Parts: sequence; structure tokens; C-alpha cells
Amino acid sequence: MKLDIIISADNIKEEYLENKIVVVIDMLRATSVIITALANGAKEVFPILTIEEALKKKEELIMNGINPLLGGERKAIKIDGFDFSNSPLEYNSDKVQGKSIILSTTNGTRAINLSLKAEEILIGAIINAKAVARELKKYNKDVVFVNAGTNGEFSMDDFICSGYMISLLCDNDNNDLSDIAKTAKYIYENNTNLISYIKEATHYNILKALNLLKDLEYCCQKDIINIVPKFSKSLKSIKI
Amino acid sequence: MKLDIIISADNIKEEYLENKIVVVIDMLRATSVIITALANGAKEVFPILTIEEALKKKEELIMNGINPLLGGERKAIKIDGFDFSNSPLEYNSDKVQGKSIILSTTNGTRAINLSLKAEEILIGAIINAKAVARELKKYNKDVVFVNAGTNGEFSMDDFICSGYMISLLCDNDNNDLSDIAKTAKYIYENNTNLISYIKEATHYNILKALNLLKDLEYCCQKDIINIVPKFSKSLKSIKI
Repeated sequence: MKLDIIISADNIKEEYLENKIVVVIDMLRATSVIITALANGAKEVFPILTIEEALKKKEELIMNGINPLLGGERKAIKIDGFDFSNSPLEYNSDKVQGKSIILSTTNGTRAINLSLKAEEILIGAIINAKAVARELKKYNKDVVFVNAGTNGEFSMDDFICSGYMISLLCDNDNNDLSDIAKTAKYIYENNTNLISYIKEATHYNILKALNLLKDLEYCCQKDIINIVPKFSKSLKSIKI
Repeated sequence: MKLDIIISADNIKEEYLENKIVVVIDMLRATSVIITALANGAKEVFPILTIEEALKKKEELIMNGINPLLGGERKAIKIDGFDFSNSPLEYNSDKVQGKSIILSTTNGTRAINLSLKAEEILIGAIINAKAVARELKKYNKDVVFVNAGTNGEFSMDDFICSGYMISLLCDNDNNDLSDIAKTAKYIYENNTNLISYIKEATHYNILKALNLLKDLEYCCQKDIINIVPKFSKSLKSIKI
């Protein structure tokens, strides 16, 4: 299968994704949050762009007898009146079991919204990379790793995460890699501990400066979760 | 100064280049041809997108008493009726001394045309990287390395060339590197012989399959030329 990467939400050409499987990656921290919440028993996650839309979605769900929780961040900080910030460590099973979660993030949600032409949208991060690779092998179709990036720009953290998954996919099989996919694989295979590369990322250093080192440590752990969330285009929500 | 990279002509956002110095890189082979021709005494190079426009430009120059030479390629092959292909080895001083050259290439010319909002457009390749870095230090302004790429896509060859120049710029000075600039620098500094990385590039392998190994060897030599061509927006031509 062909493996390619789009380096940030700003670089998505929607038609290019037709008939392909997309893996959306925003490892610091939106997709790590989504994967963690669903692994800990959340029923579903609605990725929403703005705070206004998130509050509207909450009203809509309440009207349907569902009492959702609100999570998200602006500039990496918790939103006033929300139940959670964007820290995956907050989404433990005590809090999220059986719950619908509305998550308002910028980069990750944009990446999902711009990937709707894809045949399937999977949610990936370092914490579930092996599970994603296993799922992709089942599809055996062309794959595009859509890196959410940071503020529309290439982000080292999402890039090495793509490289890790590409490296896993190339373990036994012969795949057709684009130049950017080869480069991500190279970066990963020369930094298999991840952190030697990620610690240089602008985004990593923003989170570190906000005392979010525990989040960073969590998000950089390989394969601690064995599920692959998928975005349902009809339901506009992410489920296992 | 801030150092950033645009990974292909398709990814250029023109406004982003305002007040910045752009280095256009299409090392296999357009910018290597331009640098070589000018170093060997050519008067000027007109980068032109289509064959039709190239022939029109030739007529226009002839009307003005100039007898230009035509160079270029389509799918890496010489164009019928043209004087040169896109091989830098053909542009020796016997042939180009004092001549105006019309060069019809796709990726490199597109990259130049989409960079017109920049304050200055320099022409770079591996063969003149040190000269480019020296020139950039004189400007001391924000720099964007515009990689022409191949068919609108990220190309490993242009990327490591950017990484080499960024590495040179960071030798003594503290610069502000974007994540993609850090990644290119990392790739170069782990492949200082260049070829260990470039040999995986799709574009490199296309040229190799066309028996253009001598061109590839030439274009991968560091700093054999000490000039920095610049694109004149008013003249629409490239000169030293």
C-alpha cells in the first residue's frame, strides 16, 4: 500500500484523500485524549471546533436525554466552565465511564473536518500506534497520515508519531512510501525512544513551560492502549 | 533570524513570504543548472514555465538583438529543438559565455513565480550552499527556503539541501528555527555526505533510471561554486 503524510491541517487537499484511509494525529494532546477517554469507557467523543459550538452541542445532547461532559483547551489551558482540560490524565474511568464527551480543540478538530472525503478516519497517537498499524494492515488500502500540526504548521511530535506507525507497517511488508513518509520513518528509526527528537519540538516546549511534563511523559509512551477510535461521518462522533 | 521551509511549490502561501528572503531550491536539477550556467559566464537566465512561452520569449529577445539559447526538460528529457537539456554538465563556458538562456522547467519556475512577494529571491543548491549561507548572513532577515519539490510534493533532495544551508547558518549564530527547519537540519547533520539520504529520494531514482548518474554526482557536490544568483522581479531574469 502507498503511505503518505500531510504535514499539517493547513496542507490538506481534500480530494487527495478520496478512497484512502486517513489517520488523524494530534498527539499533543487531542488524539491522546480521545484514545484515552474511549479506552477508559467513554461512550463517544464529539470533536468540536469552537467553544460556542461545544456549548450548543451540549444543549442539543441534553435535549436528547444525554448529559455530556465538556473538555478542551485554548492555548493549552482549560476553558472556563468546562469539566476537563486537554490533559489525557484527567479522563480516567471514574469520570468518563459511559459518558459522552464534547471535546473542543483547534488543530485536531480541523484536521478531522478536512478529512471527510477519506474512506475511513482513524484516530492515532503514540499511545495506540501498534493498534493503528494492525488495523491499517487489515484495510490494506492507501494510507495518509494527517498530522494536525500546531497552528497550521508542521509539528515534530506528530511527524515522528507518523514515522513510528510507518516503521511498524514496513516491518514485514513492502510498501510504497512517499519522500515525506520515508523521512518520517528515518526520523523515528533514528530516535526510537522518541523523546530525543520530540524534546526539540516547539509544541513540546510550550507544554513543558506550562508545567505539563506529566502529560508529555504520558503521551510519549508507546502502545499502552490497544484500541483504534474511528470518526463516524454520519454521527459526527468518535467511537471505538 | 527566523528560518523556515516550505516543502513544495504547492505549499507556498504567498503572503507569508512578505518582507522575507526566499531561497528557491530545485537541486535536481533546475537551480543547479542556473547556478552552473551563470558561474560559467552566462549573462542571464529567464525561468519560463511552458515551452510556448519559452519560444515566445526567444522571439522577443531576437527582436531586441539578443540571440538566446533554449534549455529545459519535460519529464527529465530534453525538449525537441532546444539547445540544452536540464543537465548542468551541458552548460559549460564554451557554450554559455555571454549568452542569455531561456530555461523551461516546471517545479523550479513555479516556485520562483509563487515567491514574488518576497523581498529578495536567491537561487540555491548544494553546489553553492556556502555562498548562499554567507549571503543570508549579510541580509540578517527572516529566511524561507522554498523547496520546489517534485510534482508539487515534498522532495528529499531539496529538503536535505535546505538542511545543509540551515546547518551552515547555525554554525555560530543563534537562530529561531521552525520545527520543519529543525528537522531538515537534523537530517543533514546525520547525513553530511548527503547521498546516504538522497539516494532514497523518488526524484533521484527517476534520474538514475534515465542514466543521469553523472548529473546526480555533480549536483550532490558541496560548494563547488561561489556565486549566488538572484531573481530580478523587474527583469524577470536571474543574474549574479
